[in-house]
Amino acid sequence: MAKITARTPKGMRDHLPADMIKRNYVINTIKSVFESFGFEPIDTPVLELKQTLLNSELGSEAEKLIYYAQHAGGKEELALRYDLTVPLSRFFAEHEHQLKLPFRRYHIAPVWRGERPQKGRYREFYQCDADIVGIKEITADAEVMSIVYTALRRLGFTDFSIKVNNRKLITGIGIYAGVPQEKLPDLYRLIDKTDKIGLNGVLDAMREEGFQEETIHRLADLLSLKGQGTLQQRLAALEDVRQILGDIAIAQEGIEELEALLQTADVLGIDSDHTELDFTMVRGLGYYTGPIFETVITKPDNLGSVQGGGRYDELIGRFRRQSLPTTGISLGIERIIDLMEMLNLYPESVHTTVVQVLVTAFDDTLQNESLRAAMELRHAGIRTEAYLEPRKSLGKQIGYADSKGIPVVVILGPDEVAQNLVQLKRLSDSHEMIVPRSELVKAVEQLLNNEA
Amino acid sequence: MAKITARTPKGMRDHLPADMIKRNYVINTIKSVFESFGFEPIDTPVLELKQTLLNSELGSEAEKLIYYAQHAGGKEELALRYDLTVPLSRFFAEHEHQLKLPFRRYHIAPVWRGERPQKGRYREFYQCDADIVGIKEITADAEVMSIVYTALRRLGFTDFSIKVNNRKLITGIGIYAGVPQEKLPDLYRLIDKTDKIGLNGVLDAMREEGFQEETIHRLADLLSLKGQGTLQQRLAALEDVRQILGDIAIAQEGIEELEALLQTADVLGIDSDHTELDFTMVRGLGYYTGPIFETVITKPDNLGSVQGGGRYDELIGRFRRQSLPTTGISLGIERIIDLMEMLNLYPESVHTTVVQVLVTAFDDTLQNESLRAAMELRHAGIRTEAYLEPRKSLGKQIGYADSKGIPVVVILGPDEVAQNLVQLKRLSDSHEMIVPRSELVKAVEQLLNNEA
Repeated sequence: MAKITARTPKGMRDHLPADMIKRNYVINTIKSVFESFGFEPIDTPVLELKQTLLNSELGSEAEKLIYYAQHAGGKEELALRYDLTVPLSRFFAEHEHQLKLPFRRYHIAPVWRGERPQKGRYREFYQCDADIVGIKEITADAEVMSIVYTALRRLGFTDFSIKVNNRKLITGIGIYAGVPQEKLPDLYRLIDKTDKIGLNGVLDAMREEGFQEETIHRLADLLSLKGQGTLQQRLAALEDVRQILGDIAIAQEGIEELEALLQTADVLGIDSDHTELDFTMVRGLGYYTGPIFETVITKPDNLGSVQGGGRYDELIGRFRRQSLPTTGISLGIERIIDLMEMLNLYPESVHTTVVQVLVTAFDDTLQNESLRAAMELRHAGIRTEAYLEPRKSLGKQIGYADSKGIPVVVILGPDEVAQNLVQLKRLSDSHEMIVPRSELVKAVEQLLNNEA
Repeated sequence: MAKITARTPKGMRDHLPADMIKRNYVINTIKSVFESFGFEPIDTPVLELKQTLLNSELGSEAEKLIYYAQHAGGKEELALRYDLTVPLSRFFAEHEHQLKLPFRRYHIAPVWRGERPQKGRYREFYQCDADIVGIKEITADAEVMSIVYTALRRLGFTDFSIKVNNRKLITGIGIYAGVPQEKLPDLYRLIDKTDKIGLNGVLDAMREEGFQEETIHRLADLLSLKGQGTLQQRLAALEDVRQILGDIAIAQEGIEELEALLQTADVLGIDSDHTELDFTMVRGLGYYTGPIFETVITKPDNLGSVQGGGRYDELIGRFRRQSLPTTGISLGIERIIDLMEMLNLYPESVHTTVVQVLVTAFDDTLQNESLRAAMELRHAGIRTEAYLEPRKSLGKQIGYADSKGIPVVVILGPDEVAQNLVQLKRLSDSHEMIVPRSELVKAVEQLLNNEA
């Protein structure tokens, strides 16, 4: 067989150890926040039935990006999951007799989309979702909003804003502006661009697409309302919207939900500097029905969104007789991982290697002494590599530890072994110790904790 | 759109929370053992180029089971990974300029095989591999053997045996028995059945397949040798084999490697009750070149293998100019998870839920008090669910906690709130406490730790 070039498929990546250690830090931090809010882990197969994905209102643009899979003789049509929300709905309907309501689950796992790869966008990437099934009360939405806030703070982010809006209010706005039913998707698509092209840009684009001037005028007033500042100022902004939208019932419902959301967010301790009402924030996916969220990093700006989410009360109904109220959030973990690096948010404890100690091997005859010392350190819970090529010089072995970023080196040469001693060296400051062999573990711990 | 039945593809499974908590316990325990030996985490894409898999000597039987994948307009032929060893080889060759030798990596991730599903065998399942690239010395093989021993002991297994053999010795045995080159694969396939049909069964099958009586006679003596007991007894058994195989060079090499392996295993503290030389253990995959391992649970017996592995010095050479010596092990984590349950090895700390406390909601007017208490517990690192339907009775809420296995319940009724108190209850023994509201966190910790 011919040798072939080693390469990953287009738009897909390997993760090297230093990269994995950082990813694991972020993922474990988020997991612990999810669990602190009482969310339980689940997992689903990477492969779903094709019909499961195609029955879930992902939208035709999304459906073009789905990966399909098959093995020789396989009778089912399969697809790689596109997100974690459709699998949750399918999962819940399949196992509901074993699950209690409310059902809070989190799921951190890769998904696949055949998009054109570009900087920061991959065809295989992780999603990181937390959802509550079975609660129609807006407290559930406030709780998932609080998870976003808590997770970003825990990771060290300081400048971010959780934008809040409501699908019912957006629908009400469409009705108020006099846009015909069939043009509503176009309207929402344009409003969604406010972030990128500004409100005036959106209004111009509406003109180009033939929206009525009266409609554009009405929207201009409404969409420019800002919901920032104190809780009272936000509630006042909502009151202004309520006045404008008058008797459009669905809009009033959306406004009441937003009021409840802001009040509960305050109870949950979400700092109002980190949230804002944004009536131009729409969110793409078809299945949202109530409050929606999107979080952006505000400094430096233009880094895009690190979180999306909202309420989708109808999706589970595609897989069972009756639907169930559901709300949740998805953290853009790949972007968060990139931003942690850019903003220098990793703590010092996140190293380039998991290894804490390298036990060198002086020569063939003394190697067993080194192997025994390594096992002793491992049993004490210290992450230890034993150098396995005793014919390499000590200098070379220490150079290896240094280049890998291993903090401490242990040396067992003939003098040390003869006198029942062991030599240790911390590479960062070249601090050396010689201690009785029986105190090896204690000495390593001291060096690692900078207590020696 | 029509409603569709919610189901997973054939041979694939969801993992519910109670199941995930157990899986995470096993995976985290193994991870911590891998890291204690200085192995670093990596990850690779689920999808590989089809040519990567087909160029890796998986064998034609395995190749039939590969899943292929494609998205609309995708130009590459892709396949879901079949194991973690081929991806490692491809990974190493692709990134070698960023990696140091020796390279120790672990990888815990799902793989896909289109096999006929049966009890305990799935089409999507996790593998759990640790390998060392770049060390030809047998100490590397002894270290990965020690990982198996340490991981199984740490998980609580007491009755298991790590069987050891050597591919070079097997080749030597084939030569000694006078089997022509082209019949060697048949010979190894038959010997591999010793576990299931016994040595006499194997010899009968050889007769049926037309092997020479002289060959069968020679093999009968050799394969029935046992390498158990003390290190000295094992070395003596190897000496017997050495005498029989005389001047077959490759057999002598295999024997020397086995001697070194047994001696180093002893230095690393592997209890000899948990290992045995087994000259009938062959291992299926085509790429092994030196020592091979396989671990079986011995009590109850017939539970099959929980680990496979060995040295494969040629595989990486399929992706780069020169190959590199490589050895490693793969833990059969799905079977281990099943056995943990069967043998009752999960510690008491592994619950059916991650949630430690349910904060009940007395009624609408007091719900905010409950939400604030929940946030306080979360900030203190206690995994806390807030009940979000205040209209449900307290009895119903406590019943929910009980049915989910949540150990502690917090109650903030009008009397408690008026007097700045909080009521707590541990459900396992109905132990109740009423403490000042400011001592909530401390009281919960006492109840969880059975200190109150």
